[in-house]
Amino acid sequence: MNRHDHDAVCTGVQTLPLLDSQTVFPGVPYSVSVLKPGYCRPQPDGSFTADGTVSLITGPRTILVDTGGPWDRDFLLKALKDRGLDPEDVQLVVGTHGHSDHVGNLSLFPHALMIVGYDVSEGDTYRPNKLSEGEAYVIDEHVCVVPTPGHTLQDVSVQVKGTSAGTVLVAGDLFECCSDEDSWRDLSMNTAVQEVSRQEALHTADVIIPGHGVPFRVLRS
Amino acid sequence: MNRHDHDAVCTGVQTLPLLDSQTVFPGVPYSVSVLKPGYCRPQPDGSFTADGTVSLITGPRTILVDTGGPWDRDFLLKALKDRGLDPEDVQLVVGTHGHSDHVGNLSLFPHALMIVGYDVSEGDTYRPNKLSEGEAYVIDEHVCVVPTPGHTLQDVSVQVKGTSAGTVLVAGDLFECCSDEDSWRDLSMNTAVQEVSRQEALHTADVIIPGHGVPFRVLRS
Repeated sequence: MNRHDHDAVCTGVQTLPLLDSQTVFPGVPYSVSVLKPGYCRPQPDGSFTADGTVSLITGPRTILVDTGGPWDRDFLLKALKDRGLDPEDVQLVVGTHGHSDHVGNLSLFPHALMIVGYDVSEGDTYRPNKLSEGEAYVIDEHVCVVPTPGHTLQDVSVQVKGTSAGTVLVAGDLFECCSDEDSWRDLSMNTAVQEVSRQEALHTADVIIPGHGVPFRVLRS
Repeated sequence: MNRHDHDAVCTGVQTLPLLDSQTVFPGVPYSVSVLKPGYCRPQPDGSFTADGTVSLITGPRTILVDTGGPWDRDFLLKALKDRGLDPEDVQLVVGTHGHSDHVGNLSLFPHALMIVGYDVSEGDTYRPNKLSEGEAYVIDEHVCVVPTPGHTLQDVSVQVKGTSAGTVLVAGDLFECCSDEDSWRDLSMNTAVQEVSRQEALHTADVIIPGHGVPFRVLRS
């Protein structure tokens, strides 16, 4: 029994990787697309190459969740253009947390509502919110930004209800990848807090889009 | 005795605001310029307008410390151009911490060495470092990036030795402004840790450039 199986038994939850090719979760009114799956690859010299997953939510509102690293600028512009979108069509940008592989391209969206961690801003005006008190920031009845602290103390995830795959959680580094039991703790600022956030996610989401891997399905017994 | 005086007496340190017009600290080999002093202004509706201080260090290397919010893109390009610089002339970009009013324009510098909080990267390659162990990341004998946690758990500041004003610390939100005794704790993720970082700064720097105000001088008895 590996650590992943053990975790699954303890919580009554199983996680199953999806095919690399399954990156679109269509739905009404919102669909979720992974524009770029994140990765994290240790290198022989002790460094690692990494990028954060970039996701797009389309429907009544156009929402970008994480923007990749600064080197992703041209990729991101092209990925949007391929979908008929200019940067100014993105109404809401969410940075799940303030690490450089997730918030590298905020400047492409100066006019969007911006939620980076627990900060909600429009231009230089920062709006009051209750993310730090554990309350979701509701976009509409289908989409909300939920506090999921642990990796940093101000991480958020975006929950999308009603896709063909059920509820999708775009989770940033709450999860590194599908089977991350051997890695997430080393990257966590507070493992106890993150464990609570992870369990809540595993009990509410049907698909989780992690920060450094491909989407995975959650099966509850 | 107000809280600021009390603090000064307790620590044997006094802080004195500099004139708004003093934003350049020339030196050999490095000079420090405040391109934009940050601010934080509460609004009647409960929101606040805010931006992070943007600073430029010039000398053997060209170093930008904090990039302002996403709305600062055009300002930043013009401020660099006014000094004869293109974005690609900036060799090192430091984001003191991952809040949106400090890391809004990372994408202008895809080829720079980038230090955001405790993460050191070149493109998508993240380099090992010991910031999380309390060790400075040394650029050269005059400039180093020092861990100054508290506001977030991964804040850094940039220390520049040998300016005409002595040692300058570009401190991000380690300090909000000169007299911030009534405000910094409410914005701190760990006040005890931040107090230690602040005291260390007050005992080593001659000038501190705070995250949301003009530079101030430190006088030690």
